This record gives sequence, C-alpha cells and structure tokens, in this order.
Amino acid sequence: MSVKAKAIYTFRSENKEEISIQENEELVIFDENSVDGWLQGENSRGEKGLFPASYVEILRRRSDSNLTDSSASPAGSLGNDSPHFPSTPNNNANATTAATTTSFLPHQGYYDDDDDDWDDWDDSSTVVEDDDEHNHHRRRSGGGGGGGSGAIGIGGPNGHARHSSDPNNPNVHYRAKPRMERQDSISSARKGSMVGRNLNRFSSFVRSGVEAFVLGDVPMMAKIAESYTIETGPRGPQWKESPRPFSCSIEDPTKQTKFKGIKTYISYRVTPSHTGGAVYRRYKHFDWLYNRLLHKFTVISVPHLPEKQATGRFEEDFIDKRKRRLILWMNHMTSHPVLSQYEGFEHFLMCVDDKQWKLGKRRAEKDEMVGAHFMLTFQIPNEHQDLQDVEERVDSFKSFAKKMDDSVMQLTHGASEMVRRHLGEFRKEFHRLGGAFQSLSQAFMLEPPHSSEPLNNAISHTGRTYENLGEMFAEQPKHDLFLMLDKLSLYQGLLANFPDIIHLQKGAFAKVKESQKMSDEGKMEQDEADGIRKRCRTVGFALQAEMGHFHQRREVDFKDMMQAYLTEQIAFYQRVVQQLERTLRMYDSL
Amino acid sequence: MSVKAKAIYTFRSENKEEISIQENEELVIFDENSVDGWLQGENSRGEKGLFPASYVEILRRRSDSNLTDSSASPAGSLGNDSPHFPSTPNNNANATTAATTTSFLPHQGYYDDDDDDWDDWDDSSTVVEDDDEHNHHRRRSGGGGGGGSGAIGIGGPNGHARHSSDPNNPNVHYRAKPRMERQDSISSARKGSMVGRNLNRFSSFVRSGVEAFVLGDVPMMAKIAESYTIETGPRGPQWKESPRPFSCSIEDPTKQTKFKGIKTYISYRVTPSHTGGAVYRRYKHFDWLYNRLLHKFTVISVPHLPEKQATGRFEEDFIDKRKRRLILWMNHMTSHPVLSQYEGFEHFLMCVDDKQWKLGKRRAEKDEMVGAHFMLTFQIPNEHQDLQDVEERVDSFKSFAKKMDDSVMQLTHGASEMVRRHLGEFRKEFHRLGGAFQSLSQAFMLEPPHSSEPLNNAISHTGRTYENLGEMFAEQPKHDLFLMLDKLSLYQGLLANFPDIIHLQKGAFAKVKESQKMSDEGKMEQDEADGIRKRCRTVGFALQAEMGHFHQRREVDFKDMMQAYLTEQIAFYQRVVQQLERTLRMYDSL
Repeated sequence: MSVKAKAIYTFRSENKEEISIQENEELVIFDENSVDGWLQGENSRGEKGLFPASYVEILRRRSDSNLTDSSASPAGSLGNDSPHFPSTPNNNANATTAATTTSFLPHQGYYDDDDDDWDDWDDSSTVVEDDDEHNHHRRRSGGGGGGGSGAIGIGGPNGHARHSSDPNNPNVHYRAKPRMERQDSISSARKGSMVGRNLNRFSSFVRSGVEAFVLGDVPMMAKIAESYTIETGPRGPQWKESPRPFSCSIEDPTKQTKFKGIKTYISYRVTPSHTGGAVYRRYKHFDWLYNRLLHKFTVISVPHLPEKQATGRFEEDFIDKRKRRLILWMNHMTSHPVLSQYEGFEHFLMCVDDKQWKLGKRRAEKDEMVGAHFMLTFQIPNEHQDLQDVEERVDSFKSFAKKMDDSVMQLTHGASEMVRRHLGEFRKEFHRLGGAFQSLSQAFMLEPPHSSEPLNNAISHTGRTYENLGEMFAEQPKHDLFLMLDKLSLYQGLLANFPDIIHLQKGAFAKVKESQKMSDEGKMEQDEADGIRKRCRTVGFALQAEMGHFHQRREVDFKDMMQAYLTEQIAFYQRVVQQLERTLRMYDSL
Repeated sequence: MSVKAKAIYTFRSENKEEISIQENEELVIFDENSVDGWLQGENSRGEKGLFPASYVEILRRRSDSNLTDSSASPAGSLGNDSPHFPSTPNNNANATTAATTTSFLPHQGYYDDDDDDWDDWDDSSTVVEDDDEHNHHRRRSGGGGGGGSGAIGIGGPNGHARHSSDPNNPNVHYRAKPRMERQDSISSARKGSMVGRNLNRFSSFVRSGVEAFVLGDVPMMAKIAESYTIETGPRGPQWKESPRPFSCSIEDPTKQTKFKGIKTYISYRVTPSHTGGAVYRRYKHFDWLYNRLLHKFTVISVPHLPEKQATGRFEEDFIDKRKRRLILWMNHMTSHPVLSQYEGFEHFLMCVDDKQWKLGKRRAEKDEMVGAHFMLTFQIPNEHQDLQDVEERVDSFKSFAKKMDDSVMQLTHGASEMVRRHLGEFRKEFHRLGGAFQSLSQAFMLEPPHSSEPLNNAISHTGRTYENLGEMFAEQPKHDLFLMLDKLSLYQGLLANFPDIIHLQKGAFAKVKESQKMSDEGKMEQDEADGIRKRCRTVGFALQAEMGHFHQRREVDFKDMMQAYLTEQIAFYQRVVQQLERTLRMYDSL
C-alpha cells in the first residue's frame, strides 16, 4: 500500500538505486515498512528509487495504489561509483569488496606511522576552507588506519557539506548523504541468514556495522575487557557515569617550527585534571584521535573538531577561536561516560614519551572493539522496553533534534549577523558621530573670544567618547557573541550526527519486524528472531542513553551560554553608560 | 594684477555676466579689489565673468598677468533671464525695472488679503518636498506684499537649494546664488553719484538695499519711531537687550477642518509669556510673518521655517516634528533683541480679533522701515572701529561659519545615519536574535521529560527581551537624535544666511574704498566720501552685533543640545541594562 510522505531533509542520490529528494518535497512511498532503514518511493519528478527513511515523514495513507517495490536492484550491482569515495590505493576496497572480508583485522603489514613523517597537512596545506560561523567542516581520508585489505579510508560522518547552501536559495540547506565508511563495514553475505541484507550497501546502517551486529554476524567474544553499562535513570536509559570523571584544560597555543623554520605549527598544552600532568598536542593529534573515535563509536555522537584552518590561519583571532572550540570539544569528550573512558583518549591525554606514543597509537589502531564489535561492549538493563515505545521516543527525539538544529542554525545566523553589525555599521556610525562632534568643536575653536573653551573641550571629549564607543561595539563580540557561536558550532556538530544514528535504530527495527514475520511464517527459527530482537534492544538502549546524555549536556551548556551572554551584555552596556556619564559630567560645570 | 583664488562655495551662474564656480575650483582673479562684492575672473574652464567675492578665497599673488577687467558688461544688459525668477504678473518688475522706480512705496492700490481667501497652499498643496534631515527648504513667492508697481515677489534668502546635492557626488553641496529680491531694490541711477553702481543688479548687496543705504540714496527721515541700539559689550558690538524680554510656547497642534471637511489644517496654540494670552496660528500665519521678516530685516539672519510639508504631512510624526521645529524657531525669534521687538511679530503673537488681524497685517505690509530704510533705525556706538579690523573680524567669522556649516552638515548626516540604523539594522538584528532565542526555547519544549521548564521560560523570556530591545532602539531617536537634528536644522538655516550678509558688508567696504579713492583724486567731495564711510560703519556694527548674537545663542543652544543628548543616551542604555538584568535573574534560580 502506497502512502504519501514529505521529505524533511534534502538527500542527494549518489547511487543508481537511490533518488534525490528535496526538503519539503512530496513523495509517494511504495511500502511504508522500510527495508534496512531505506524506503522505496517516487519523488515529485517521477524518479523511483531508494532514500533514507529517517529523511522523510509519512503524511497519510493513500489507498488503491498498485505500485510495489519493483525497482530494487540487486545489491551486487552497487559499485564504487560515488565520486566522493577516495580513490587512493588504500581505498580500493569498496563496499562490495568489503562484503567478502571475513573478519575485521585492519592490521596486516607494518604501517609506518612515525609522527614526523606524517603528512603535515595541518600546517602546510594551502586548502582554503570556508571559515564562516556555519558548520562547514570537511573531513578527509587518511591520518592513520591500518593498511590491510579490510582498511577503507575514513570519511567523516556526514559533516561534509551538511550545511552547504543552495546557491539559488540561501535558506535551503541540505544534508549530504551519510558518508561514513569504516573498516568494519562488514557484509555477512557469506552467512546464510534468511533475513535480507540491505539493498544499499552504502547505508550507514550497513557501514556502521549495526546491521551485522543485529543480524548476529558478529561473534560474541569470550572475554571482552571493555564494558559500558547502560542503566535506567529517572528520565530513561542513561550511560553509567565514569568511575573516575575528570576534566581537561587546553591552554597556551604556541607557534612552533621545525625543519629550520620551514614548517610551523601550533602546539597546545593539554592538562587532564586526574593526572595534573601536561602534554603538548598539535591539531593533527586531535585529528588522529577524532578519527579513532569515528572509527570505534557506533551510536555515539562524536562532535567534529573545529575548523581545520583558514587563510591566515595562524593569525591571533584564528588561533584563539580554534583554541576556544577545542576546549568545548574537550569538555564534551570528558563529560561523556563512554568517550571519556576510551583507551585511545587516555593515551592522547597522558602519553609524553615519543616511543610510547607510537606504540599506543598502533595499539589504538589495532583495537578490535570498533564498529559492530563495539556494540558487544554494552551492558543493558534487564527492564523490558516495548520496542514500539522506543521507536516513539526516537521519533520524538528526531523531531526535537530537527527543530533544535533549525534553531541553532537560526541563532548562529542571528549572532553572526550581529557580529557583522558590531564590526561594521555600529562601529562606523558611532565613529561618524564622534568625528562630527569633534569637527563641531574645532569650528567653535576658530572664534576664541566668542566661545567657551570648557564647552569646546566637552564637545571634543564627547566626540572621542563616541569614537571610543564605536571601538567598544567592535570589540564586544569577542566577549559574548563569539563564545555563543563557539557553543552553537559544537551543537551543530553533535546534532548533525543524529539523523544517521537514528537511521541505525530504524534499520535495526526493520530487521526485527522482518525476522518476526519470517519466524511467524516458519521461515526462521524463533531463536534467531529472538536474538535479533535482543540485539535491537541493545541498539535502542544505547541510542536512548546517548539521547539522554545529549539532553543532559544541552541543559547545562545552554544555561551557561545564556547566562554568560547576558552577563557580558550587561557589563558592556554598563560600560557604555559609564563612558557617557563621565562625558556628561564635563558639561555640568559650564 | 591678477591673483589666484579658490572657490570655497559652489556658485551657479544665473546671468550672462556671471560664471559658475565649483567648490575647491582654482580661479584667476583679474582684480583683487572686488566691485560691490563681486569679483571678475576666470574659472578653470576658461569662462570669464563675475562671481561673489565672499564665495572665494584669495590664494597668492601672481605677477605678470595682462588680464584686466575687460569682460564686464553694462548693467543695462541684465535682464530677467533667470528661470528661477517667478514669472507671475506681480513679478514682472525685475531688477532693471526696479532701477527706474523712484521711491519705495509698496502699498499702491488695495490688496485683498482676506485670510480665508488666501491660497490654501499650506493645507492642500500636493507638492512633495524632500523631507530628509538636510536643509532642503524651498521658499516660494507670494504670501502678502503690496500690489503696487514697486512690488516684487519675495524670494527666500538663499534657502532654496542650498544643500542640494550634486547627484554624482553626495559630498558636494552647493549654495544657490542669493535670490533675495525685495521691493527696496532701489537703484539710484537717477542720482548723479560718482561712485559706480554695481554691475550686477541681482547682487544681494543691491537687492537688500544696502548699496542704496551706503551710497546715501535713502533719505534720512525726520522722525523714526523704530530704533535699535547697538552697544559695545565685552566681546564687541552687540544688540542692546530688549527692554521687555519674553518667551513663547507653541503647543497642542490640532487638526481643523473647513469647507465641510474638504480642507484640513493644523492649528497651534501660541502663548507669549509677557501676555499669557493664547492665540491660535496656522503654518501659513507663520509663513506670512516669516516673509515680513525677510522683507524688513537686512543684515539679520532670519532662520527659515521648518519644512512646509511632506507626503503624509498630517501624520503624527510629521506634525510632531514641525511643532518641535516651530518651537526652536520661535525661541530664536524671542531671543533676538531686534526680531523680538518687531511690530508685526507682536501682532502675530497677540491679535485675537479677525478684523484687527487684517488691519495689523496690512499695517505690517505697509511698513516703510524695511530693507534700505531699516538700516536707518540703528543707533551705533561712537567708539572708533578701524574698518580694517572690522573686515578682519568678518573674515574670521566667515571662516568660522563655513567650518561650522560643514560640521553641522556632518553631524546632521551622522545623526541621520544613526537614526536610520536604529530604525533599521539595530532593530532588525535584535529582533532576529530574539526570535532565534524563542525558537530555541520552543525546540527544548518538544522533549518535556528531558528539559527544565524554568530554563525554557528563561530562554523564551530572553527572546522577548531582545525583541523588546529592538523596539527600544527603534524608538530611541525620538528621544535624542530627532531633537539634535531639529536644532541642527535651525542652525543650518541661520548659517545659510551669513554668506549673503557678509557679502553686504564686503560690498559696503568696496564702496568706501572706491569713494575714498575718488575723493583723493578730487572726483568726489570729502563730505560725500565721509558719509559713505559713516554708513559703512553702521553696516559693520550691525553685522558684528548679529555675529555676536549668533555666537551667544550658539553657546547656549549647543550646550543644551549636547547635555540633552547625552542625558537621553544614558537613560536609554540604563534601560537596556535594566532589561537585561531582569532577564538574567531568571537564570539565577536554575
């Protein structure tokens, strides 16, 4: 039965089987039940094909449609035809190749990861990135990762082009198709499972390993050292607090040089509170860590790093901005019960020895508990949760995240415009007025016997005061709006991950329904169906814990943000009043 | 001997004998000694002819020039070829016609000045005037004046187009040629005086009657009821204070209708302090008074009335603005020792009876002591003033007035732009930010169990606060910048008159030099030359008294203006602080 739906995000087709949909476009869905998180349907231009279920909203039922899922292509026809996939030798292993990989072992062969031999892209790249306050954030492949057959270049999780604007309509933003691709993009095609694999092998559901996990393709290991507990809190499932919470400062960005000054880079002093020992890290070390996090942590929203660089990237303003944003990023890391306990993170925070650093890096890169395997590390409550309820909660969060994303965008836009006015028109007009007052005072000075010097001085002082107010207006964003924009940028990054994460849960859900149907029809053992349901519960609990964590941080962060902003605004306008009062007093004695 | 000079104002030629000069243009002056306030020279485009001496600044001597004043045309060739002169029947009497008029008697024949029969241009005209904050102020002929052969339509003293902008360069303003033309533009060609008449019969020097006065063409009357004393004050000559100073309020602009509502007009309650009795006056009554003032008061700067009207002229803002500016105009009138004692002004302030009103108006229109004759009313100190010193003082004032005019223009521009920003960008950006905060709060409300209602309320309240700040910014100019602009507009009007007034003195001075030379050469009786010198002293004293009055008022007015502005600015930013503080407190309890 076909139904009507509306696209709530823009999705750009990147494969033959997929069709592009535009935000707000009306669609016809051939079957309301998504397959692995994908729906089949027709867009308003008559194109038929697949698009992510989490990108659309079902509108209402339509009866009497005779369209069915007839346009599906065999998964085997999917090739690496996306121009977005890196084509370096390391990345020849595309999804179909990966489907023949039997296990996740990224560490065949020796990988020369000598620190100083790394491509020094951080400091020498001349790529100019869009440095505006929006969330343009381009990830690139590289920065570690084993060289084995299972290795695939790591693409960032849909940070890319997320907020690229339609050049014809500045209000239209689109989300790029999920481009996350991991070493653990395992297909279990070799197994004879009866539940169908995803048609689209580029689906984040597949690539994240969640499909493999839910279908039971990932063997439970005898002994898992890593374990993250999800408990039931007053507001629902939550990550169990880390047994040793800590914070971490980032200070003192310092320009360093190497190769006799040919290359320069910025080094930050990073000091975790629980050790108190400082380590010095470069942006590329952060970036290495970030890529490890993307690689490992399924269903967790890893915020993107601040913008890599801009032209004039070592200018003071840029360095300061990146430092502020690294601090926020670090705060989110240390606040997160799962991320903060990651061994690779610990290594990043504590290692001071060069040799140990390389060893620790290699260890992190050989970590087996990534992607699908990472799902095995969760301890979930025994409490029964109706899957329907979970889905409703996720849907509610999805609406919330969409609305919050829009609002954050709106506020980012408003704050950026306000910054522009402060630096531009406001400064200019106060200057202009100040200059005119001074000019008036100069005119009065031309006829000394007829004019009072104190009045001339007072007017001249008023002129300087207004020029000064202009400078104060131009300076003020550094004290308030910039900090607001930093936090909004962090949240844009966090929110940008949720559609994909929600997509995982939708995919898991679809597998449960499918397997139950097969079990009901006697085509699958009940045991296997129960296993799928159980693993889907794990996905649901993890997602809810992550949603809960997001909310908890959001409350704190936005309260802080608003208080800090208002406090600075008050201080600013008080300074304006003080300046004006001092000036007015000059007229009192006249 | 020719010299170089620079134009300090733009002057537009309106007669064949004149040439146009541009501000800052370099000129060659054929003879440094101006004739009746006019210089002969050549502009940068090679055009040769006359331009007002007060519009240029001599740069340095040039030797070896063989150019002399060869391009002068006989005065008789000057015709009414200016498109700016009204061509209504009443105005056919142009300057050359006026030159044959033997005496100043404007009141031949009966003039029907019934109030309600006046052209109701004030209330029904659809002429759209430029209503910006600059000094566009267009005067028109009419509004009283006798119908006799000597009557010439009254043009405003160079208010017209004074600050019209060059469309190609918004920074270039030009002064229109003096366009004052009065009934007393008497030529004394009939007299055999040896001192030459002005070549240019449109010169304000001629038209104001000052030439006639200086040359002794105006017979001293046996008994002059009117008398204004110039005394020597601490800063030089000054008008003797009025024996009965008073102020006058203008209140309660009220829309009135007549002809069964077909015509509407605004009536103001005008209450002079020395009688305490209210009279009701319309704009056209102010305009009648203004034209009487222009007609009578030579060497006194009569400020122009506020803009006549704009589209939507009866909108509250316009009515309010006109009222405020009429009040400032009135304050200048009552502050002026000469203007405030004018009989016609007294009539305007006190007459309540319709019939008396008409009689008083006719009496004022028949006043003989206008223009050249008005000069006879001055009582000057016996103190000797070296004419050279007077000229230096006038030159100093001329530089000052030019600089002050520029500054007032600059400040007007700055304040107008600030108004525009307050109503535009400031309001818009605060609104935008406020809307974004509210949107954020709405997003948070979508997940009730996960969000704190007090925080959502606080953020929502912050949003409303910022929207409110936007409104406050948009409202604020009413409390400060508008009032500043009112005062600046008054001063633009006052300053605009000075080049012409200074031109009168320059003309008088030239006559003294000319007559002394003739006397030295035995071509003129020393008595006659002494008379010219004596009358020139009167002009000099009157001008200095007027300069002094201007300075005295300026000190008071600009001090008041600055204090009022700063006081309002402080109050405004304090209100901003209070709003923000109230808002911040909402977060305290969270």
